[in-house]
Amino acid sequence: MKQALDALEQTQYAYSQAIGCLHHDGSTAAPRGSAAARGVTLGFLSEKSHELMVRPQTRELIESLWACRDELEAPVRRRVELLKKRVEELTRIPVEEHVAYSRLVNESSVMWRQAKENNDYSRFEPYLAQVLDYCRRFAAYKDASKPAYDVMLDDYEKGMNTQTLDAFFAMLRERLVPLIGPLSDQPPAPDFVRAYCPVEAQQRLSERLMDILGLDRQRCAIAQTEHPYTVGFNRWDVRITTHYYENAFLSSMYSVIHEGGHALYELGMDEELQFTCLNDCPSLGLHESQSRFYENLVGHTPGFLSFLAPTLRELFPEALGGIDDGALIRAANRMAPSLVRTEADEVTYPLHIMVRYELEKRLVSGDLSTRDLPEAWNALYRDNLGICPANDSQGVLQDMHWSEGMFGYFPTYALGSAYASQLRHAMSRELDVDALAAQGNLAPITAWLRERIHRHGNLYDPRDLLKRATGEDFHPEYYVAHLTRRATER
Amino acid sequence: MKQALDALEQTQYAYSQAIGCLHHDGSTAAPRGSAAARGVTLGFLSEKSHELMVRPQTRELIESLWACRDELEAPVRRRVELLKKRVEELTRIPVEEHVAYSRLVNESSVMWRQAKENNDYSRFEPYLAQVLDYCRRFAAYKDASKPAYDVMLDDYEKGMNTQTLDAFFAMLRERLVPLIGPLSDQPPAPDFVRAYCPVEAQQRLSERLMDILGLDRQRCAIAQTEHPYTVGFNRWDVRITTHYYENAFLSSMYSVIHEGGHALYELGMDEELQFTCLNDCPSLGLHESQSRFYENLVGHTPGFLSFLAPTLRELFPEALGGIDDGALIRAANRMAPSLVRTEADEVTYPLHIMVRYELEKRLVSGDLSTRDLPEAWNALYRDNLGICPANDSQGVLQDMHWSEGMFGYFPTYALGSAYASQLRHAMSRELDVDALAAQGNLAPITAWLRERIHRHGNLYDPRDLLKRATGEDFHPEYYVAHLTRRATER
Repeated sequence: MKQALDALEQTQYAYSQAIGCLHHDGSTAAPRGSAAARGVTLGFLSEKSHELMVRPQTRELIESLWACRDELEAPVRRRVELLKKRVEELTRIPVEEHVAYSRLVNESSVMWRQAKENNDYSRFEPYLAQVLDYCRRFAAYKDASKPAYDVMLDDYEKGMNTQTLDAFFAMLRERLVPLIGPLSDQPPAPDFVRAYCPVEAQQRLSERLMDILGLDRQRCAIAQTEHPYTVGFNRWDVRITTHYYENAFLSSMYSVIHEGGHALYELGMDEELQFTCLNDCPSLGLHESQSRFYENLVGHTPGFLSFLAPTLRELFPEALGGIDDGALIRAANRMAPSLVRTEADEVTYPLHIMVRYELEKRLVSGDLSTRDLPEAWNALYRDNLGICPANDSQGVLQDMHWSEGMFGYFPTYALGSAYASQLRHAMSRELDVDALAAQGNLAPITAWLRERIHRHGNLYDPRDLLKRATGEDFHPEYYVAHLTRRATER
Repeated sequence: MKQALDALEQTQYAYSQAIGCLHHDGSTAAPRGSAAARGVTLGFLSEKSHELMVRPQTRELIESLWACRDELEAPVRRRVELLKKRVEELTRIPVEEHVAYSRLVNESSVMWRQAKENNDYSRFEPYLAQVLDYCRRFAAYKDASKPAYDVMLDDYEKGMNTQTLDAFFAMLRERLVPLIGPLSDQPPAPDFVRAYCPVEAQQRLSERLMDILGLDRQRCAIAQTEHPYTVGFNRWDVRITTHYYENAFLSSMYSVIHEGGHALYELGMDEELQFTCLNDCPSLGLHESQSRFYENLVGHTPGFLSFLAPTLRELFPEALGGIDDGALIRAANRMAPSLVRTEADEVTYPLHIMVRYELEKRLVSGDLSTRDLPEAWNALYRDNLGICPANDSQGVLQDMHWSEGMFGYFPTYALGSAYASQLRHAMSRELDVDALAAQGNLAPITAWLRERIHRHGNLYDPRDLLKRATGEDFHPEYYVAHLTRRATER
């Protein structure tokens, strides 16, 4: 039976690598007009992969293994447990609803893009309402005993629920919102952050950063895309992506560091986990904790920026030749409330997430209708960030997540940063993180994270893994304290 | 039944796009260490695709359609005919031999690479002998009534056989070999062909060339690889590749033009053929005829080079700033016998092919043993090109084809050039090709080829298509006359 399990998982791996490769190629290398014909292949492979999971043989295999779970080694038992959950959830959703939903999400994301481009929320609203309906229904199929939003949260962050998140965001609101006002009085960003930096020089910077991060180039490649992401097919094949703006060198610089953090996670999973469902992270929040760790707790530190400054001046002599370390550090750490999440600084960022959490909680419970969503969005931005979008494109339409049915996803972004701070606190018992960052010596940091997080893949639930790694349960105080320092010690 | 046929073909399309995408990504974007884990996925998909073709339902479907072939529309009948042949051939090879052969070819290509790197033919020889054995046996499975080498030739160039090729190569030998001697007396190539041209500038040249060729960038992308090739997944998604050498700008320039010719073929196939086996070329020779047409009959003409010269001087001011059109034309058309096929000029190129044709014919028939192959190789180079390789890496080990069991493939390279000349002759009744090339106005040329060749995909056998396009049967005289002019009118 163990052999049948391995074969099943290897087949799933093959489908998902093929699908992942087609998506990655589509986002980085394929010509623009190729999407529809690629969709034929993607549709076919997704269907086969879905069929494999719900077919009787698979369910019988999993049930038989589950029946003798006490005799299985722990990693095998964990695999069976994870697959059982997935198979059961997939089986409970009627095939015709699954197909109709896939079609709807396709249309909905097209409509979202059009609505955003034309600043016309009303065009998108009916689709959003339908997507939300499906998501609520699917949540009930998965676990009717729990509130729908808790089921959704659990999808992205196993074990997470509104109780924990309500407390987390209440704490953020209470401690951070009072800090926002003073941030608004800052002088504008200096001109050099908008100076022209040729793409070729930025590409060389990416290479340097990958070396500094210790990304093994035999196993990790970089490509260009519109919205940067990382994908790991296995521990020997991880891809990061970035986007180059000629007049914003910090953008790609921090994309590469952020995605590099994700990549280190994928590259660090143990060899024994390969080709199984354990070669995965336990939650999106934990994955994000790695990218945020390198981006914020290494990449934004004065020490690391001083270490990097000579390289930046060398690569961008015209833009940065006369800029001293202090100016660079201040510019990279400039904070001010803004309208767009992906451009937010470290301190205001979780407030953007808080707004989305509040809204999706109310949308899913039915307290808020999709028709009233833009107004509610604007009100929350006014109350918490002190600013209000001039239009829906910069407001409620800015993110694609809801158009694709990803309700419950946003909180993982803030949780990731909070986990990172908790890991940083635990790490500091053994390592002088700031000093290492200032030397550009990230290997000990990565080794620490690999041993405690990366190598374990999906062997443990996220909260358990965090506890094993840091010695304590989720404790957001480290994060809030860190953000308070960032916002005040300037 | 027509629906079942469409579904079968769409599934085959999906497998082959997924496999193609993984290979393309592997050659252009993937990190080096990723091959083994990608192999798991490729192995699985190839197996599924093979299974689909040989399973009873497929055979029954094809047989039923074949039984009522007279009632089918011509394109559907053609699809059934092509699939019937493929299914029958695949079915005749026992599964265990198919698997063993795949494994052997994998090892054999690794051994070939090692042997080439270490100039050690003896290491590779036992593998080559085994691969040759399998190929002979498979040929007998496919069609025991014909000589094995004829079966192999037919695999790559439907309808081709030793009778036609013997005559073709005899003509080349008789008319070209006497021209080789005088070519050896030429002065060496001028320094500027080896001048430093930055990769970024060469990339800009690739973009310009793609525009000049009229490649639709919505449907065609370019990437970098070690050995340039083109792959077309469908008419909306075609990829060309090139390799940049900093000290050989002509290399990538002609790669892009050559691969661009292949790409125009793939982009030009009719929409009705998509997702079926008709969205293919009838033979490798015909595909090569398109790449050679643009490379040799457009790209090497004095007119086109004069048209391109200002662009080259603009992009490579340091290397070519002071070079006049005449010097560029002479350098791009320099001819001299050389040892390596892929670096050969237009006139000596078919002699490299002739050597390989002669050798593989004798290998397959058993007249020549793999052990005596290097000596036979060297002797034929001496006799026909007047030069002899100093070692096997530059001689018999230079190409990977035989290591992968591709016996019968090489002749298509020479046939492609010959077809191109025949097409050029027919085209010249309607178009002034040289004048159009000199204006960089390739659209009428491409339109002519699209109408007569590209759009028909695999609707006709290669020889029939050539006849429809040119009004006459294969007629190598145009090619030999063209090469004679090239070698003498200097």
